[in-house]
Amino acid sequence: MVKLTDAMKTEFEKMKIFPLATASKDGVPNVIPIGMCFLQEDLETIWIVDNFFLKTMENLRANPKCAIYVWGPEINGCFQIKGDVKIIDRGEEYDEMRKMVKAKSDRFPAKLLVKMKITDVFECKSGPDAGKKLL
Amino acid sequence: MVKLTDAMKTEFEKMKIFPLATASKDGVPNVIPIGMCFLQEDLETIWIVDNFFLKTMENLRANPKCAIYVWGPEINGCFQIKGDVKIIDRGEEYDEMRKMVKAKSDRFPAKLLVKMKITDVFECKSGPDAGKKLL
Repeated sequence: MVKLTDAMKTEFEKMKIFPLATASKDGVPNVIPIGMCFLQEDLETIWIVDNFFLKTMENLRANPKCAIYVWGPEINGCFQIKGDVKIIDRGEEYDEMRKMVKAKSDRFPAKLLVKMKITDVFECKSGPDAGKKLL
Repeated sequence: MVKLTDAMKTEFEKMKIFPLATASKDGVPNVIPIGMCFLQEDLETIWIVDNFFLKTMENLRANPKCAIYVWGPEINGCFQIKGDVKIIDRGEEYDEMRKMVKAKSDRFPAKLLVKMKITDVFECKSGPDAGKKLL
């Protein structure tokens, strides 16, 4: 697995909304903005909460891979994170996710925990190095 | 083909940076922020400029489909646009794209024109209607 650097963690934690990309089994890309996307202490796992996923969840069930990027006006640089996901619908981590989300607001259904294991990190800043593998 | 509504056009034109999602032939999603993304007058075609694409271009050559969303602090609502693309490397439209980009700054290589024909538009605002087809 791949671990973000401490500098990447700092930028990750400034983000409020992440673009989350998935693809259907036959390769149709999908991208949505998500708010509930949390880097875990091991720096190699990201928890994503499914509140209102539709195509995203269909895609993840058929093709358990996703990508997000970390960029915004308040972010230094830009990087893309790719990973493999597991969909978790019970157990200790699921209960922890539910508790965390319900503490924010009861209007979030907190249906499933999407646990992303980071596999790759790429440079994403506009310029000749865009797209190069960082980790 | 699918045409954006005038209200969608208004929101589209407020956007400065769009998340552009593609997928490799074997379904690995990719997402990057892009600035050069222009809705055309017919409201069913979007011009995307390849300045520094790497995986994005590899993906589009193998699997000519992409998705973007329109959302941001200054945008009313949120919608996702999916489309089929053609990669254009010569001709009148290509020359027009080059002229437009080079007028902005010579630092942009303006390598290729990615011409996206809109196929679908989906609701993308957080809530129970997220993911539903709008157009």
